Order: sequence, then C-alpha cells, then structure tokens
Amino acid sequence: MITANKIEVCFTPNNFHLYDNASSIVVVIDVLRATSAICTALFHGVEKIIPVSSIEEAKAWQAKGYLVAAEREGVVVRGFEFGNSPFSYMTEKVKGKEIVITTTNGTLALEVARSSYKVVAGCFLNIDILYHWLLKEDRNIILLCSGWKNKFNLEDTLFAGALVNRLLQSGKFMTECDSAMASNYLYEQAKSDLYAFLDCSSHRKRLEKLSLEKDIRYCLTPNLTPVIPILEGNGLVKLQPAERLINYKK
Amino acid sequence: MITANKIEVCFTPNNFHLYDNASSIVVVIDVLRATSAICTALFHGVEKIIPVSSIEEAKAWQAKGYLVAAEREGVVVRGFEFGNSPFSYMTEKVKGKEIVITTTNGTLALEVARSSYKVVAGCFLNIDILYHWLLKEDRNIILLCSGWKNKFNLEDTLFAGALVNRLLQSGKFMTECDSAMASNYLYEQAKSDLYAFLDCSSHRKRLEKLSLEKDIRYCLTPNLTPVIPILEGNGLVKLQPAERLINYKK
Repeated sequence: MITANKIEVCFTPNNFHLYDNASSIVVVIDVLRATSAICTALFHGVEKIIPVSSIEEAKAWQAKGYLVAAEREGVVVRGFEFGNSPFSYMTEKVKGKEIVITTTNGTLALEVARSSYKVVAGCFLNIDILYHWLLKEDRNIILLCSGWKNKFNLEDTLFAGALVNRLLQSGKFMTECDSAMASNYLYEQAKSDLYAFLDCSSHRKRLEKLSLEKDIRYCLTPNLTPVIPILEGNGLVKLQPAERLINYKK
Repeated sequence: MITANKIEVCFTPNNFHLYDNASSIVVVIDVLRATSAICTALFHGVEKIIPVSSIEEAKAWQAKGYLVAAEREGVVVRGFEFGNSPFSYMTEKVKGKEIVITTTNGTLALEVARSSYKVVAGCFLNIDILYHWLLKEDRNIILLCSGWKNKFNLEDTLFAGALVNRLLQSGKFMTECDSAMASNYLYEQAKSDLYAFLDCSSHRKRLEKLSLEKDIRYCLTPNLTPVIPILEGNGLVKLQPAERLINYKK
C-alpha cells in the first residue's frame, strides 16, 4: 500500500506549534504582500532576503549598512527606505544585494516555521513552480498562512486552497485537515475571479485605503516570478535547481 | 447615521484573546457535540449545566455527589456515567438536576469566554431562537468555535456561517472579519446538505468510527431544542424570556 503524503493548512502563526513540522515542508504564505515581495525580489536578482521580527532588529541591521525594508499596518515604517510593495524590489539598486525585511505578519510566520524540515515562501506569483517542486519532494506539507495579526485572512487562505486543490488532484497527497478542506472549498468558489472575491476582505480594504490597488492585482497574478525562495541559515535564497523543473518563458 | 453592530468569528479558543469581548455577546459553538448536548439537556428539563475544564475538577464534583459527564476524544471517560451524546440528556434521571460536564473542546471555549458581556451556547438545535434573541439584544457578537484541540473545524464553522448569513441579511449587522466572511461562504456552499458537506470532515470521521451517526444527524437538525443556554455564575441555565421571542410548537 502506498501511503499518500499529508497536506495541512495552519491559518495563523500562533497556532503553528500544534502542527508536527520536524519532517514536513512548510510553505509560508503572505500573499498581500510579504511572500509576493520576496519572490519578486529573488526573481529580479536580489541575492538574499533576511527576515527579522522586530523594528529594533531591523534598525541594528541598518546600522551595519544593510538595505532594510520595514512595513507595519501596510505602510513603510519611518526611517526605512522601503516596505513590502513588490514594486520596490524590481530596481537595479537592489540587484545582487542582501536585503533585511520586517513586516506585520509574514516575517513572524517565517520565524515560527524556522525549525521545520524545509521552509519555502509561496504566493500566486510562484504557484506553478512551487507545485511541481512539492510533487518532486514527496513529503508531508504544512501550508502556513501569515494571516493578519494572528487572525485568519482570506487571501492567504485562497492561495493555500489553490495549492491544496492541485496537490489533491495529483493523487499523491491526501488530507484529513478541516482547514485544508475549507481552503479548497473557498478557492473553488473564488477561482473564477480572485480579485472580486476578495472585494470585501479586510486586508484588501486596508490596502485600498492606501491606494495599493496595483499591488493587489500584481500579487494575485499567477506565475509572474517563477522562483522558489527557500530558507537557508538566516535568509531566503533562490532554490537553484527549481528553475529546471519546468520550462518558463523568461 | 446608524452604526450596525459587528459580527466576528473566532475559529479556535486559543485565539479568543485577540477579540475584544468586554461588551460583546459571545456565542460558544461546539456542534459535535457539547453545545448540542447542553441545549438538549436544558430543553429536556436539566436545571443547570456546570462546565469544567479538567477531569480532575470533574472528579471533585463527582465526589460531592453531582451527576458528572466527561468526554475526551469522542468517548465517555472511564469512571463517569455519560459523555456528550445529546441522547444521554433526554431521560427522566437528569430532569431537574445540575450536571457537571467536561469535554475535549466545548468546555474549554466556555472557559475562555467567561469574562464576556454575555455568553450563550449555540448550535443548529437552537438556531432560530438564538437568531431572534441576538436581533433583539442589539450588540456586537463574537461567534466562538470550539474547534478540535485548538485547530479549526468545519462543523462549528458551518454553524457560525449559518448565523452570520442570517444576521447580515437582517441589515442590523455588518462584518469586516475575514473569518466571518469565510464562514458565510462555506455555509452557502454547504447549506443544501450539511451532512453530505461534512462527509470528509475530520470530526465526522472520528465520530463515525465510534458509530455515532445518529448523534451527527441529530446535531445537524435545526430547531429541535428551542432554548438559549446562558452562562450565569458557574453554569449554563435556560434563558427564561427567550421562549416568548417566537412561537414554537412544543
């Protein structure tokens, strides 16, 4: 009997301790916008993203001469050059650099997941390459949504659902996890128009107030940045062999 | 401008501290089966249900001569007479009695909600009367799902969604809470056949293994026990005026 690998979804970082992560791959998800920014950065030539939890740590890195991004409540923290808008990570200035980043939710999720077998960052921007890599890795998977201040959020759940949907269809995975099932059901309802489905969601409203419509549309577009950010040591780097998994037009 | 009251859904007891409950009504939900058992008990003449968190506390009450119900992992704990099957609470034996109860999830949720403005127990068995009472009370509402060992579960979420759905339709409530929206979306998908929708859910499977099909079907049937259990002091009692809110055939 072949036992299928297991998929679970954890909706918030503070519940992650309830999941057995020692031999699982953890996909950290912060669609709006941390993991979208991280994928964008690595795709556009940033060498490494170093996530830190607090503003204090971020300042300490800044003092050492690093480029530092800091976001709280959707806006760039005073005293820092940029936040988590993916568009900040497409410039020549960041190419080849190591960038330190702290955000409201995403960097916290990366922090709690740190001790897992492997930790990667996921979002719609890298969904296909991530899916193919997960198939090849053949391990139990925990999808960790960053949420909003440890509360459930819709956009991360929809991305989790999109992955659950495809992984279950592959026949190589199973789930007995109610949050994985719920994510899949919600994705099924939302998939024809993710943007419209998120119309009432709390974080989309929050970002709309900040005129970040362009960011939202970008972050909901599949496969714009086919890279897999993987945690190695203190930072996320581009998983090198991943690019060979599938052929993309560059 | 009239400000509508707010509805929020908290998926697990350990996240309840993130919600501002001091002036809110909290509806504690454990569809399979604690809040269904509590509604059934009060409807069938039990005087009071005293929820306690641990087996040790339950034993201490037992030593004082109380009837004590104790459930863990879906089964009656050794040394106790009954667990949380609603059918245990329909007998002459329990009529007029105060019963102490401890369960895997529901009594924990009641415990964390204790300091709220008002705490009531909800489930499909009392949905209509609860809905009408919430309309009349005209307060912010937090729907607290008991989940399964602090993980999200589908059945409690579907009941939360059923209430959110009706409360939003009344026009007297609004929500900016993503978990309330998700619950509503899931309920919309499930409502034509809740039993079938829960077919793959983890807890339904758990109870099926224990041959508790009859309990599940009972717990998913609306309005069998039109009472509102409300926390007063150390226990849940039947809210007296609630019966006058709507006319039920007894």
